[in-house]
Amino acid sequence: MLTKAEAGTDIAKLMAEIGAKARAASGPLAIASAERKHAALVAMAEALIRRQDEILAANAIDLANAQEAGLTSAMLDRLKLDSGRIGAMADGVRAIAELKDPVGEMIAEWDRPNGLHIERVRTPLGIVGVIYESRPNVTADAGALCLKSGNAVILRGGSDSAQSTAVIHAALIEGLKAAGLPKDAIQIVPVTDRAAVGEMLKGLSGNIDVIIPRGGKSLVARVQSEARVPVFAHLEGLCHLYIDRSADLAMARRIAVNAKMRRTGICGAAETLLVDRAVAATHLVPILEDLRDAGCEIRGSDEVRTLFPDAKPASEADWSTEYLDSVISVALVDGVGGAIGHIDRYSSHHTEAIIAEDAVAVERFFNEIDSAILLHNASTQFADGGEFGMGAEIGIATGKMHARGPVGVEQLTSFKYRVRGNGQTRP
Amino acid sequence: MLTKAEAGTDIAKLMAEIGAKARAASGPLAIASAERKHAALVAMAEALIRRQDEILAANAIDLANAQEAGLTSAMLDRLKLDSGRIGAMADGVRAIAELKDPVGEMIAEWDRPNGLHIERVRTPLGIVGVIYESRPNVTADAGALCLKSGNAVILRGGSDSAQSTAVIHAALIEGLKAAGLPKDAIQIVPVTDRAAVGEMLKGLSGNIDVIIPRGGKSLVARVQSEARVPVFAHLEGLCHLYIDRSADLAMARRIAVNAKMRRTGICGAAETLLVDRAVAATHLVPILEDLRDAGCEIRGSDEVRTLFPDAKPASEADWSTEYLDSVISVALVDGVGGAIGHIDRYSSHHTEAIIAEDAVAVERFFNEIDSAILLHNASTQFADGGEFGMGAEIGIATGKMHARGPVGVEQLTSFKYRVRGNGQTRP
Repeated sequence: MLTKAEAGTDIAKLMAEIGAKARAASGPLAIASAERKHAALVAMAEALIRRQDEILAANAIDLANAQEAGLTSAMLDRLKLDSGRIGAMADGVRAIAELKDPVGEMIAEWDRPNGLHIERVRTPLGIVGVIYESRPNVTADAGALCLKSGNAVILRGGSDSAQSTAVIHAALIEGLKAAGLPKDAIQIVPVTDRAAVGEMLKGLSGNIDVIIPRGGKSLVARVQSEARVPVFAHLEGLCHLYIDRSADLAMARRIAVNAKMRRTGICGAAETLLVDRAVAATHLVPILEDLRDAGCEIRGSDEVRTLFPDAKPASEADWSTEYLDSVISVALVDGVGGAIGHIDRYSSHHTEAIIAEDAVAVERFFNEIDSAILLHNASTQFADGGEFGMGAEIGIATGKMHARGPVGVEQLTSFKYRVRGNGQTRP
Repeated sequence: MLTKAEAGTDIAKLMAEIGAKARAASGPLAIASAERKHAALVAMAEALIRRQDEILAANAIDLANAQEAGLTSAMLDRLKLDSGRIGAMADGVRAIAELKDPVGEMIAEWDRPNGLHIERVRTPLGIVGVIYESRPNVTADAGALCLKSGNAVILRGGSDSAQSTAVIHAALIEGLKAAGLPKDAIQIVPVTDRAAVGEMLKGLSGNIDVIIPRGGKSLVARVQSEARVPVFAHLEGLCHLYIDRSADLAMARRIAVNAKMRRTGICGAAETLLVDRAVAATHLVPILEDLRDAGCEIRGSDEVRTLFPDAKPASEADWSTEYLDSVISVALVDGVGGAIGHIDRYSSHHTEAIIAEDAVAVERFFNEIDSAILLHNASTQFADGGEFGMGAEIGIATGKMHARGPVGVEQLTSFKYRVRGNGQTRP
């Protein structure tokens, strides 16, 4: 990783060169065989394991620098690698290797009355830009997912993890070379200057087809507001869990605790609990007792606090707060219609769940709410590409364009039409 | 249509109100039944026919104004309506009524080992902004396609066709009302000020999900460069026709004339003919004679002019010129590899065709060229939603995101996941 002085000040020129190299690599990559990409991924996983000591040594430097810079213990934990985490990284790359190759897959085909046969087949998007923060494993995950989907990738990691990232990147390049694929298929931006991110957001003169930010809300917000190219991202996961009057109480209690407390820091964690006013008397207190006993802080509306005095008062801001912590906001609503109204107003359109036995209420919830993922009688924490059976995800998108929900290898592809004729002219 | 003075100068405020009304309409529209939307479309078609005299009277005013303003005869022809054109407009709306409703369609479904059942279903995009020029029929086409796909639409037509558009819009509103759908589902921007377009390109504070420009290159270029929301468009259709050494000469002759000359002004018209050098001696001259005899001007490379002295010299600029006229540029290339190289360099990634009997050459052409539509032994003029069996199209997109190729009702949808469980929590 170079400083601004070492790189020279012309970040725009450096980034333009990276874009041009990515474009040059994207051609051969798009037509690389499934076997060759598989071989590269397997070789990458092996190189990660082989270079374990080197990765740990680099990570120790990153950790020492981070400690000196006064990073929080949560940030240090995200940065830290050990042999278990390196093994998991290599396993992740191997799992991506074993996924079905999406490129060239026939999505649809049909015949026309004039004899034309039309095929719609998957193609790579081209070049993916990934902007991330301190987790070094994103380097391997994103590199592997983009390679599998035939895309060149430009990775811009955080400066905190620069040393670790550089060695992980070297392992990925080893895999590319072993399989005879262009090394520029996976590039790391070698400068810490924030201007490099600005250049990526401008799209490098058409040499970035999509940007994927991985990190905190401020990073995602900057990318969403400044990017001149499409972005796959979610700003936040303000997920709702609604307990309908027809809910099975035992199921509601289990799912509420899981949706909130299994892991509080992930985007699929529930942040607001809505309980049907019709069953407030029977359902609210047991669910809140379970949450409280699991260590969760309850912030309730006045009505909720009357029934459950342990709750702290919820302010208006609570309904639009993604806590990512052991805190939940709780309100009563008038049936599924009331829940839909609340969710329409406050949701980030990521994931919402309904607990109900009444099929009519479920269908209304499913039809009328326009969030990426809707669940019935299941925890919001299933909002995850792996849990959806996609093998791995590079993130979750809440936009409506192209990719929505978990972004896996399929979502990293576009398509084209192949039309087969035998001499047809158009009348 | 109001002038700037009549509307007041606060275009931003006016457009924000239009955006808010569209958002309010988009909710009920997204969950409107297929039957209700069908009824609205049928009523719209009837209203267009019933209001024929009114439309013709308004169109006469537009035409008189346009003649006074000195519009070209081609522009006047695009603007002009007659009973045949009004009938075709109504038929188009009826055809869209009969298409399968895309909203709620199950795109995929699968089960997970833990018993979760995952469904991926189509949803409307939300709000579509359409910016177009003088053709009044776009009002009806775009309004009908957006309604069928459950989207609210904000239409910004050209000032030349303002009177005609207003009456056509009134007919559409009549259809919406007859079916009990919100009239704000289809809105016309009532000011001619260009600042209104600027506001639409900024996305009306999240109240436009996608912009579709319909018109000439300068309009599309402005939209693509300024829009802060996704755009479905093609800047140009620089389509190539490649004649391989394995081509059937009779077929190549027929297709070349059709691809170039059937209609020269559409985006799927061929603009460059590439002939395999290996068959230049036998194939080039008969094809160029046919084109010349059909009234086409030939602009050839030096080699081409040696074999066909009638050709004018092609300059470097010709290889990247979309003539939209009876002109074609012609070059010799070294086989399919040479054709791919030329197309990679100059194509607008819209549509390319290969005429060949050699399956290996065809597969290489299909695999290595990344254009929206590739055709084998068929005319480039088939690049059209109707010809693809989509019923109708609102345009053709050359971007790689979301929609590519013809944009029909399916391409105007997004999707969401519905996950059905029976109490699953995530381990």
